[in-house]
Amino acid sequence: MPQGQPSVVPDDGLTTRTRRDRALLIIHTGDGKGKSTAAFGLALRGWAQGWDVGVFQFVKSAKWRIGEERALRALAATGEGGAVTWHKMGEGWSWVQRRIDPTAEPAEAAREGWAQIRRDIAAQTYQLYVLDELTYPLTWGWIDTDEVVEVLRTRPGRQHVVVTGRAAPPALVDAADLVTEMTKVKHPMDAGQKGQRGIEW
Amino acid sequence: MPQGQPSVVPDDGLTTRTRRDRALLIIHTGDGKGKSTAAFGLALRGWAQGWDVGVFQFVKSAKWRIGEERALRALAATGEGGAVTWHKMGEGWSWVQRRIDPTAEPAEAAREGWAQIRRDIAAQTYQLYVLDELTYPLTWGWIDTDEVVEVLRTRPGRQHVVVTGRAAPPALVDAADLVTEMTKVKHPMDAGQKGQRGIEW
Repeated sequence: MPQGQPSVVPDDGLTTRTRRDRALLIIHTGDGKGKSTAAFGLALRGWAQGWDVGVFQFVKSAKWRIGEERALRALAATGEGGAVTWHKMGEGWSWVQRRIDPTAEPAEAAREGWAQIRRDIAAQTYQLYVLDELTYPLTWGWIDTDEVVEVLRTRPGRQHVVVTGRAAPPALVDAADLVTEMTKVKHPMDAGQKGQRGIEW
Repeated sequence: MPQGQPSVVPDDGLTTRTRRDRALLIIHTGDGKGKSTAAFGLALRGWAQGWDVGVFQFVKSAKWRIGEERALRALAATGEGGAVTWHKMGEGWSWVQRRIDPTAEPAEAAREGWAQIRRDIAAQTYQLYVLDELTYPLTWGWIDTDEVVEVLRTRPGRQHVVVTGRAAPPALVDAADLVTEMTKVKHPMDAGQKGQRGIEW
């Protein structure tokens, strides 16, 4: 990956180092594979930097990304890099130090999750936030996009944020520093292939 | 990530399980970020499955993906998942159990690297191969694309392969099961931002 040179030198009065160390809001969107996988790859890199990483999963899936969770927990347990905290929405999921009622609406669970992120951002709990599939509750109107954009835009200190999911809202894209769209060129499901362990989860 | 249903059921005489467990050739291409990061995310998942993972880096970069390497080596050292073997092209890089002459041409080093992969595939050394930035020596004509396609198409057993890099050759795309194009929507370098530790490497 060539690091290259910036195509413009901004007239913002900042030194190169200050700009280099700026916290980034990163979005992985599009209909293709790799959005979350690349976000967990960033978590890997962040761990190696000694960053504390907070993972927040916004959509319950059958497999809960168990491979990534197991690997990141194993990394955290080595004590060589940063800590990794893993938050899931749904059953057994305890944000805000309490269990969410399993009969609660998923929308409420999503809002509770966002409230926790908001508190963590204010407290500068993590250096890297993986907000996995956050775009869906935004699209569904469960969480207010304008509020998310405002909180992320004004977050204090040096906290990197990665948001994944299809159809990232335009206001979030506008606020982001780095946006990558993953596009499906060819997928095995097109040829009748089902998802498989180790590849899909 | 919804796993969904295959859009067609192929008339290939295979059971769903056989199709599900088919080894995949995966390509991450395009000009955007996340191609290699997502490949290392797959390595994370493969490790958690207990797969032996072989990483082959085809383009020397200033930072050598040290974060990913450190993390994957730390994971391998836990002994909880699979083994991870990391191969670099260039100085200090020892494919085929010998050091490549540091004065050798990079093209020769790339060919030696490919020869090692070919042997590993024949020997079924790994369950997952990360061929990082292989597309470049293919594009530059250092390694023969037709040979690579043939070796990958006819690889024995259950060996997953992920190839990353811009401008994947059409013959390789044709042979692949899953191809994702990462497209840059917005990048901090456009605003004068330079690469930074933990995000770019």
